[in-house]
Amino acid sequence: MSTSPAPKTRTAARSYHHGNLRAALVAEGLAALEDSERADVSLRELARRVGVSPNAAYRHFADKDALLAAMAAEGFRRFGAAAAAAQAAPGRPAEQLRAQGRAYVKFARDNPALFKLMFGSFAASNRSEELTQAGELTFEGLRAGVAASTRLPRDDERVTVATVYAWGLVHGLSHLILDGQLDEFGDLDAMTDAVLTFASTAGQQR
Amino acid sequence: MSTSPAPKTRTAARSYHHGNLRAALVAEGLAALEDSERADVSLRELARRVGVSPNAAYRHFADKDALLAAMAAEGFRRFGAAAAAAQAAPGRPAEQLRAQGRAYVKFARDNPALFKLMFGSFAASNRSEELTQAGELTFEGLRAGVAASTRLPRDDERVTVATVYAWGLVHGLSHLILDGQLDEFGDLDAMTDAVLTFASTAGQQR
Repeated sequence: MSTSPAPKTRTAARSYHHGNLRAALVAEGLAALEDSERADVSLRELARRVGVSPNAAYRHFADKDALLAAMAAEGFRRFGAAAAAAQAAPGRPAEQLRAQGRAYVKFARDNPALFKLMFGSFAASNRSEELTQAGELTFEGLRAGVAASTRLPRDDERVTVATVYAWGLVHGLSHLILDGQLDEFGDLDAMTDAVLTFASTAGQQR
Repeated sequence: MSTSPAPKTRTAARSYHHGNLRAALVAEGLAALEDSERADVSLRELARRVGVSPNAAYRHFADKDALLAAMAAEGFRRFGAAAAAAQAAPGRPAEQLRAQGRAYVKFARDNPALFKLMFGSFAASNRSEELTQAGELTFEGLRAGVAASTRLPRDDERVTVATVYAWGLVHGLSHLILDGQLDEFGDLDAMTDAVLTFASTAGQQR
């Protein structure tokens, strides 16, 4: 009998508590996502990587879309933590809102494939309750920042418009940066900061 | 001899002046683009559709990337015409800038695949002179609108920041709309207008 442990991926008899295996598959999927095209994330391959049978994986996810939805929802939780930290930082509401914007762009740059999964057509059309709730929580977090910054009631229609405005701006900056469209401007952190600062003072210059 | 004309796609002996065939291939490529995935636009198939041999097509485009670059450049010319019309419309500079923003989002919604080709990673990394110039002209057109709206000199650094800001906003709105992320807000023309109006008055509300 060999004293060296068997490679993890061959340990087919590995046991997980129910919730643990689901979380392990999501975590492995997120790690694989940034290394590959989305089409390459296969439930069968992830099962192999965490050391369980395909059937064990299929007990948690009916198909790949179900796994992708759980991955996107986990992405929203991770992003939500970063955005909440920005929102809770000391400073005036407008500064906190800018920090939320920076956190959005940073998240997109750090996790480009996950960003596109969370905020692209897949998430918009997916009906998973977990994903829908996670996405709504994120929008409400941004709305809270916008409401504080504009000093308007949170359910005011103008806050909805201002929230879509803020989302559109940081979403567009993220896409332009990820696609290399702003490379000629050099320091993209500085450009992001300058744009977000401009945004919070734009009307005053007209 | 039959009196009915041969189907266009079988007329292998069709003759074009040099520039005409290039333009015909680009036009056919643009028509095909919105009907298919980008990967499906093949130079060989386009040659068949316009009724020339593959070799005749390859005399104009060394490979598919060269064709895609020419298609993106033609897209910039079409978009530039729409943006210039918006910029030339009567009204205050801020209104003309909003009209440019509406034209950007409308172009994206009318030509989603072309929009992603023009403003995505392909165009940012492609070194075709025609495409680079067309992209720069577009940015300069937006910069002119921003300079007029802010009453700052066109080469002022703040105009660069404000131009990236305006681009980011309309780019993000376009992506969110194309990906279905704003579907819950109903009338997307109205939401676009409301967001662009908010953008030009944002600082005054803080």
